Amino acid sequence: MLKVGIVGATGYTGEKLVDILLHHPEVRITYLSAKIEKAEKIDNIFPRFSGKISLVCDNFDLEKATKLCDLLFLAVPHTVSLELTPDLLKANKIVIDLSADYRLKDMEEYKSWYKVAHKDKKNLEIAVYGLPELYRERIKKAKLIANPGCYPTAAILALAPALTAGIIDSKSIIIDAKSGVTGAGRKAAMDFFFSEVNENLKAYKINAHQHIPEIDQEISNLAQKKIQIMFVPHLIPMDRGILETIYVKLSGHKSRKDILKIYQKFYKTEPFVRVYNEGKFPQTKNVLETNCCDIAIEVCEDKKTLIIVAAIDNLMKGAASQAVQNMNIACGFKEDTGLK
Amino acid sequence: MLKVGIVGATGYTGEKLVDILLHHPEVRITYLSAKIEKAEKIDNIFPRFSGKISLVCDNFDLEKATKLCDLLFLAVPHTVSLELTPDLLKANKIVIDLSADYRLKDMEEYKSWYKVAHKDKKNLEIAVYGLPELYRERIKKAKLIANPGCYPTAAILALAPALTAGIIDSKSIIIDAKSGVTGAGRKAAMDFFFSEVNENLKAYKINAHQHIPEIDQEISNLAQKKIQIMFVPHLIPMDRGILETIYVKLSGHKSRKDILKIYQKFYKTEPFVRVYNEGKFPQTKNVLETNCCDIAIEVCEDKKTLIIVAAIDNLMKGAASQAVQNMNIACGFKEDTGLK
Amino acid sequence: MLKVGIVGATGYTGEKLVDILLHHPEVRITYLSAKIEKAEKIDNIFPRFSGKISLVCDNFDLEKATKLCDLLFLAVPHTVSLELTPDLLKANKIVIDLSADYRLKDMEEYKSWYKVAHKDKKNLEIAVYGLPELYRERIKKAKLIANPGCYPTAAILALAPALTAGIIDSKSIIIDAKSGVTGAGRKAAMDFFFSEVNENLKAYKINAHQHIPEIDQEISNLAQKKIQIMFVPHLIPMDRGILETIYVKLSGHKSRKDILKIYQKFYKTEPFVRVYNEGKFPQTKNVLETNCCDIAIEVCEDKKTLIIVAAIDNLMKGAASQAVQNMNIACGFKEDTGLK
Amino acid sequence: MLKVGIVGATGYTGEKLVDILLHHPEVRITYLSAKIEKAEKIDNIFPRFSGKISLVCDNFDLEKATKLCDLLFLAVPHTVSLELTPDLLKANKIVIDLSADYRLKDMEEYKSWYKVAHKDKKNLEIAVYGLPELYRERIKKAKLIANPGCYPTAAILALAPALTAGIIDSKSIIIDAKSGVTGAGRKAAMDFFFSEVNENLKAYKINAHQHIPEIDQEISNLAQKKIQIMFVPHLIPMDRGILETIYVKLSGHKSRKDILKIYQKFYKTEPFVRVYNEGKFPQTKNVLETNCCDIAIEVCEDKKTLIIVAAIDNLMKGAASQAVQNMNIACGFKEDTGLK
Repeated sequence: MLKVGIVGATGYTGEKLVDILLHHPEVRITYLSAKIEKAEKIDNIFPRFSGKISLVCDNFDLEKATKLCDLLFLAVPHTVSLELTPDLLKANKIVIDLSADYRLKDMEEYKSWYKVAHKDKKNLEIAVYGLPELYRERIKKAKLIANPGCYPTAAILALAPALTAGIIDSKSIIIDAKSGVTGAGRKAAMDFFFSEVNENLKAYKINAHQHIPEIDQEISNLAQKKIQIMFVPHLIPMDRGILETIYVKLSGHKSRKDILKIYQKFYKTEPFVRVYNEGKFPQTKNVLETNCCDIAIEVCEDKKTLIIVAAIDNLMKGAASQAVQNMNIACGFKEDTGLK
Repeated sequence: MLKVGIVGATGYTGEKLVDILLHHPEVRITYLSAKIEKAEKIDNIFPRFSGKISLVCDNFDLEKATKLCDLLFLAVPHTVSLELTPDLLKANKIVIDLSADYRLKDMEEYKSWYKVAHKDKKNLEIAVYGLPELYRERIKKAKLIANPGCYPTAAILALAPALTAGIIDSKSIIIDAKSGVTGAGRKAAMDFFFSEVNENLKAYKINAHQHIPEIDQEISNLAQKKIQIMFVPHLIPMDRGILETIYVKLSGHKSRKDILKIYQKFYKTEPFVRVYNEGKFPQTKNVLETNCCDIAIEVCEDKKTLIIVAAIDNLMKGAASQAVQNMNIACGFKEDTGLK
Repeated sequence: MLKVGIVGATGYTGEKLVDILLHHPEVRITYLSAKIEKAEKIDNIFPRFSGKISLVCDNFDLEKATKLCDLLFLAVPHTVSLELTPDLLKANKIVIDLSADYRLKDMEEYKSWYKVAHKDKKNLEIAVYGLPELYRERIKKAKLIANPGCYPTAAILALAPALTAGIIDSKSIIIDAKSGVTGAGRKAAMDFFFSEVNENLKAYKINAHQHIPEIDQEISNLAQKKIQIMFVPHLIPMDRGILETIYVKLSGHKSRKDILKIYQKFYKTEPFVRVYNEGKFPQTKNVLETNCCDIAIEVCEDKKTLIIVAAIDNLMKGAASQAVQNMNIACGFKEDTGLK
Repeated sequence: MLKVGIVGATGYTGEKLVDILLHHPEVRITYLSAKIEKAEKIDNIFPRFSGKISLVCDNFDLEKATKLCDLLFLAVPHTVSLELTPDLLKANKIVIDLSADYRLKDMEEYKSWYKVAHKDKKNLEIAVYGLPELYRERIKKAKLIANPGCYPTAAILALAPALTAGIIDSKSIIIDAKSGVTGAGRKAAMDFFFSEVNENLKAYKINAHQHIPEIDQEISNLAQKKIQIMFVPHLIPMDRGILETIYVKLSGHKSRKDILKIYQKFYKTEPFVRVYNEGKFPQTKNVLETNCCDIAIEVCEDKKTLIIVAAIDNLMKGAASQAVQNMNIACGFKEDTGLK
């Protein structure tokens, strides 16, 4: 049994990690920590875990963490991973970081979006971007996995087949993204108070969201040229789920049938990406509580524009279950263990 | 035109007061204040008011308030009214206090429920409990009106006819109350974060809610004996609306028809209380954005138990519109001015 | 007092029309009809109207309608207006049609989108498209007003200044539209059952929504050339509100400041269009229960793409209140009467 | 592997049964039926099952059902089970009926509440009421299990310890019940349309709900005397979850501590009933997607009234997962198989 710890266990992602790992046959949760006023049993914090796990959750303690765990999930705000990761890697632990700290390969980009200097060049270089559909082989050998952001996961999976096939104008990418409220994390900001969100709909951080450079980096890699997307996120009055509607110009005439074939072939062997047949479109309910990314495409009559719709559960494929998928790959477990 | 000010204009109740008073033909809003980091125009804070009112909202300033207003609404947390009211009354202003500070006539009760000593005995004695259906005559002459709490408004109106008619066992009153989230006010507590409230339902402060002594006081007055209710509030995943389901033992055999007559007679001339005919029951949607309290009754087959269901909009009859109704009465305007 | 009737009074739009007209000082509601099993008082159907209006609502009766009304609102499904309008116009009534029947000037387009032949060429020719911001002068003299659809209202108002100024590439228009559930009307389709909509998000009718030709027609008029938009609507788990995020290529370099000036100037004298200052963006809550359309713009750093965000209340500016605005104009009342 | 069929697979409960049974290590789903226009694969109907199960779902066919299955779940409306059960039992199948048809032992009661005559006396006599916490031994040998209703499950579990201990006045039981919308089943009634339920709250079927005789029957058995409860259900704007707040008079003075001990002892060995410690209260989120019933108690200061709060997930312990729990018991599997 692999001994795993969760740092940041009281956030939405941390809670979901506990939930998934409790049912994972190859691991045992041996350590929980969070920024917390006083130590408390996790089933006191989340009564739904009562009878399942009763580990004490306390502030992070490096000695305990390294002594009790083989692998650690860091479900913490950015900059916190930067503090913890070097020591954990030095102690020979596998680190799956769900923060943004090791996602951007360009330290200047990190600084410009997160307003703080990166200071761990060494580990940034060995970090593997944890999107299994693109980087499975590297993840197998990784010691530090940078688990992708929720918006980027859907965006990159939605664009990868078209970019790889070279059928779209990479300068024309527009991503209209919509997310439920848990995407913002568990923090008591008035913006996320029930009566502010409920029965309301808004765009925010228009072309200014910190997930933009992450998407740019990955799709630029895929297209082997520098791409800059346009990205507008919206806050939807629901708990969970991301739906992205993506508009791109086709570089040549292609029928819906042709492009659908490209997508279906690209993801043929992927257990967690489902490409829809013609005429069906994703809904966030279809992916709720799953590790799936559902994708459908539509081509405009003039055959010049491609519309891609992708849906994920932001807490699952967008965070916790993708982290577990990465753990499975890195630790040699069957990739879908605990995720079916 | 009456010059009115709103203290606490940025809370849900304050915002709703601005909304109602903007359309009130007899008044002009001349002063707005709130606990605020820096002064800001109200239509900047609430863009929906843009084009309608652009008054600056700043921290409370006694001199300005007394200079600019004839009447002040205090939509502030308890204890704050205790600070402001004596000076405002001294300056000869009419005060309509939407906090709990002048509702309980017994200063010991106040202390025991609000954990702070009351210190304004003098004004407490002249304060009139602002439930127009019971105290209209006194409100006409009042200088200080203690606007009722949201739960008490529905509970007292629901029980008044039965208690006055002496048909129920006053020791048997059980109030199962349900409220939308705005009832808690605009404050960034994690309990009221979208993802904690949405798709969730809970009881809270079981028989321990601070509105209990207020209900007890008023219905004891009506019954002319000491009553102690049982009261369990529940948090409902919606913005606005209170529904109370009240269970009481009948003291003698009474048919539904008899009791319905008692209720209809009691509220015959009231513009804002609607007693439903047999077989129809209140829904919170029916009272949304109105100053109405809707009431229906059911009698159990054995004729021994009376069930009363009452609905109000917690921000309207439960707070802001009732405050305006009180102003109308106290200032000699037609009672439904601005409230139709 | 103008005598007005509402045909289709039991739908969401009809109900909202009753609500608005009840508070309109220049009119009296004299006739209500709906497709209904048996005649029933409107305050029985909607208890929230009790004490305000108690007119009987029955199936449409031409004789009664023409006898009792000067003006009729038709809040009915498409094709029904085609049946009723000729007779009402013949009887010299003013007709404000909230269905789609008289919006498309091209009868072939109508047939191709609504799958039924148009058959009232004569009245189609005299019908005026009821968007006051564009057609105020014609509305003043209109006998038949085709009240715009909800999505088109927001889209056209959002695009009009840019198209009129000739600053955008009219072939590049992408409209990502999001609507609450009442946009679908009050009909018992499983798609709109609470548990299908709640906590769910989906795109639908991708580039195939019947509002597309209406938007195309109007913005082609504005640009004085044939335009075809790309349009993807989404269903949002909330009652009311439309937010549209529109992406267009700029035809030349323009700064945000320049474009903002164009928008502010275009709508300077409009009482119901609010252009936001830099850095603020519309939310549907800001327009709820108002006749306002709120608009903000953003220009991408490369100055080549313009993002326009527009919000309306689909039942108000997107239907009922805009119909009342049209009535005010056509009947010579002050334009904002009953709409403040 | 036990071969199981689900009749009524397209309802909320049927869908949830598919979901649970897919992850159950001892069974294989071999047959699916529903009232359906034309046969369709279940993963077409529910895309979230794609990649997991692709069985065709067609109208019920007795021959197929008996040939393909060892055990059948009937997730059908009442009266339909009455049609199917006799034949299935004759064919020697185990039947777990989730409808109301075999719950009430008194055929007259059935007729009076469900407005149709019962006609299967023989099987009604052998049917076992499937509440494992009360009837585990009988369920072990049952061929026909009447799976309890959602409201009764919570109510009976909440009352059982107190009634068995004889500490309450059985004439005083008041159940104020609140349920999410899926409790009503998947049917296109306007009452359950999104915009009717959302932001609304109402009581319905006041003391007239068909679950009343079921609760009365079972708690009368427990108390060994005839009991009639008072029961008011409420519709809550959320998908899933039931919370019941129960008020009863204590027959003697008992402290909270005493009664808590009675409850904790009663459920000490039960895997799916969690009694909360003092000061903590159930929320529906804590039981979501679980087979748990969470219970807490409060005693009023005067020690004369007991308040019991119980929460379940109506689709799980209130329907599908309890049916699986019953299957586990009846088939000799470990009771929590597939339910952890």
